[in-house]
Amino acid sequence: MRVIVDAMGGDNAPVEIIKGAVEASREFNIDLLLVGKEEIINEELKKYNTSGLNIEIYNANEVIENTESPTMAIRRKKDSSLVVAFKLLKEGKGDAVVSAGSTGAILAGGLFLLGRIKGIDRAALTPVLPGKKSPFVIVDAGANADCKPNNLLQFAVMGSVYANSVLGIDNPKVAIANIGSEEEKGNELTKQSYSLLKSKLDNFVGNVEGRDIPEGNVHVVVCDGFTGNMILKVFEGVAGTIFSILKEKIMSSTRTKIGGLLLKPVFSSFKKQFDYTEYGGAILLGVDGLVIKAHGSSNAKAFRNAIRQAKNAFDGKMLNIIKNQLEKLIETE
Amino acid sequence: MRVIVDAMGGDNAPVEIIKGAVEASREFNIDLLLVGKEEIINEELKKYNTSGLNIEIYNANEVIENTESPTMAIRRKKDSSLVVAFKLLKEGKGDAVVSAGSTGAILAGGLFLLGRIKGIDRAALTPVLPGKKSPFVIVDAGANADCKPNNLLQFAVMGSVYANSVLGIDNPKVAIANIGSEEEKGNELTKQSYSLLKSKLDNFVGNVEGRDIPEGNVHVVVCDGFTGNMILKVFEGVAGTIFSILKEKIMSSTRTKIGGLLLKPVFSSFKKQFDYTEYGGAILLGVDGLVIKAHGSSNAKAFRNAIRQAKNAFDGKMLNIIKNQLEKLIETE
Repeated sequence: MRVIVDAMGGDNAPVEIIKGAVEASREFNIDLLLVGKEEIINEELKKYNTSGLNIEIYNANEVIENTESPTMAIRRKKDSSLVVAFKLLKEGKGDAVVSAGSTGAILAGGLFLLGRIKGIDRAALTPVLPGKKSPFVIVDAGANADCKPNNLLQFAVMGSVYANSVLGIDNPKVAIANIGSEEEKGNELTKQSYSLLKSKLDNFVGNVEGRDIPEGNVHVVVCDGFTGNMILKVFEGVAGTIFSILKEKIMSSTRTKIGGLLLKPVFSSFKKQFDYTEYGGAILLGVDGLVIKAHGSSNAKAFRNAIRQAKNAFDGKMLNIIKNQLEKLIETE
Repeated sequence: MRVIVDAMGGDNAPVEIIKGAVEASREFNIDLLLVGKEEIINEELKKYNTSGLNIEIYNANEVIENTESPTMAIRRKKDSSLVVAFKLLKEGKGDAVVSAGSTGAILAGGLFLLGRIKGIDRAALTPVLPGKKSPFVIVDAGANADCKPNNLLQFAVMGSVYANSVLGIDNPKVAIANIGSEEEKGNELTKQSYSLLKSKLDNFVGNVEGRDIPEGNVHVVVCDGFTGNMILKVFEGVAGTIFSILKEKIMSSTRTKIGGLLLKPVFSSFKKQFDYTEYGGAILLGVDGLVIKAHGSSNAKAFRNAIRQAKNAFDGKMLNIIKNQLEKLIETE
């Protein structure tokens, strides 16, 4: 497999991005096409032993910044690392694009330059979150602030394929993120979506409330992108706040410092389980190509895992399975 | 002050409700009007020393269950503890109603039996959450799944008064819960609400993202009830899941068990800071009367604190201040 890497995207680009890409190349046996300023990339590559690795560089002189209007940037910066990466994917020069760049630009670029899969009206950002029992995905986590029931149905189909072929979950359970478990609870969108998903999907299990989402009993949480992004961010925010408060309190006395030392294995094993970098990035489902959006603040490890995620999706033939599932869905209409 | 207590509402009613009410009566010098089955209440009261306390019982033979349709229950069960409690408040027989009963029934009862404050289109459930820097309120946390910008403006006004007069926060900061910090981010509701709140409120500070909400830099988080309920529940769910996982891991070896013992003060001080029972319940803002919805699973301590919350709102003349603020708002239209 050959992964096209946007070497200039992300808070820690190009250093951590290239480091992570080289690690992934060696560890997962992946060919790389690094896109960005050739000189800089070459300079970075010198730091690592790349013998035996298949790494190519494709020059692109521009970089899209987080502050730019995504749509404008995609249209105007034709020689940006991200736009060039998408074009290379479209031309079949690689099997996936992985970028830690601007979410909006990745979304806009995916839609304009790759197009949508037939049967999909909206593409969706799909991160993997750690649950107590099982990891799970949220579809959509921010690409579409306002949605219609049919979007949620398509999210459910794509999310199920992803959970199955990439996370390896057999017959993943799909639920609508809602503020009550009963069918008649929620807002207009969730109420209308409930009956639609119930009639179309075998693996739909109903609504899941915010309190139960972290349990991980449901594997595919579908919602509009506003709700999904809110769930994702509150999830990260509460976890971060809890650990920052615990840390302060642990450092406040000798007794608790010793306690903290003794609990080091607990905190590390917890961190491993709840660490977003373990899961790589969010996949952009619905565009006609494999696109992984790595966390903007990705370090080498997170970026390496985002590439592993691309490999899992590729090996699991995710795109083809999604296309087949959508055809079935269209037939039943 | 005299608090009307729905003695039959909640998972632990009447035992914990009456226990908490008696504690509050003694501790905060509050007169009680306990509404429910007289015999049962009398039996419970025998357990405590009530000498010197001003406690009256008002008989009501019916109880509204969580499973009932709220609107139907309020209309039909005229002799239920909740309906009778609201009627007593309306008649001026007390200064506030506190209930741990069905949220839907409290909402419906508040609207039908007390009516809305002039200038308010929708009543809002308003819980207090623990933040790192400061506690904060969410308005609305579940009363109105779909909202309009004008609702959010009214929520902001009421939430500010509440944060000020009950939580004692000077000039509380108001923000819209959103999926980006910039004005143009979000869904239709948040985009339209942004300019409205900006033009009408001096204490509006913009949008707050899910990740930053637990920090407690913003004191009044306004949103539609769907979003608010989702934030509240994910907040509780993530915190609960983290501690349940930590507990399991701590109990897994002798070393970590000792570490856990040494960290006991850390966990208890954390628990105190992050414990919802410390903050009592959610106030129902917008109805013409003081109504506190205590957590359905309230124990005596949580219910006692919900009564303290009613006292704080009463002492702070919250209702009058809200009415004044709304008049000012209407004048500027």
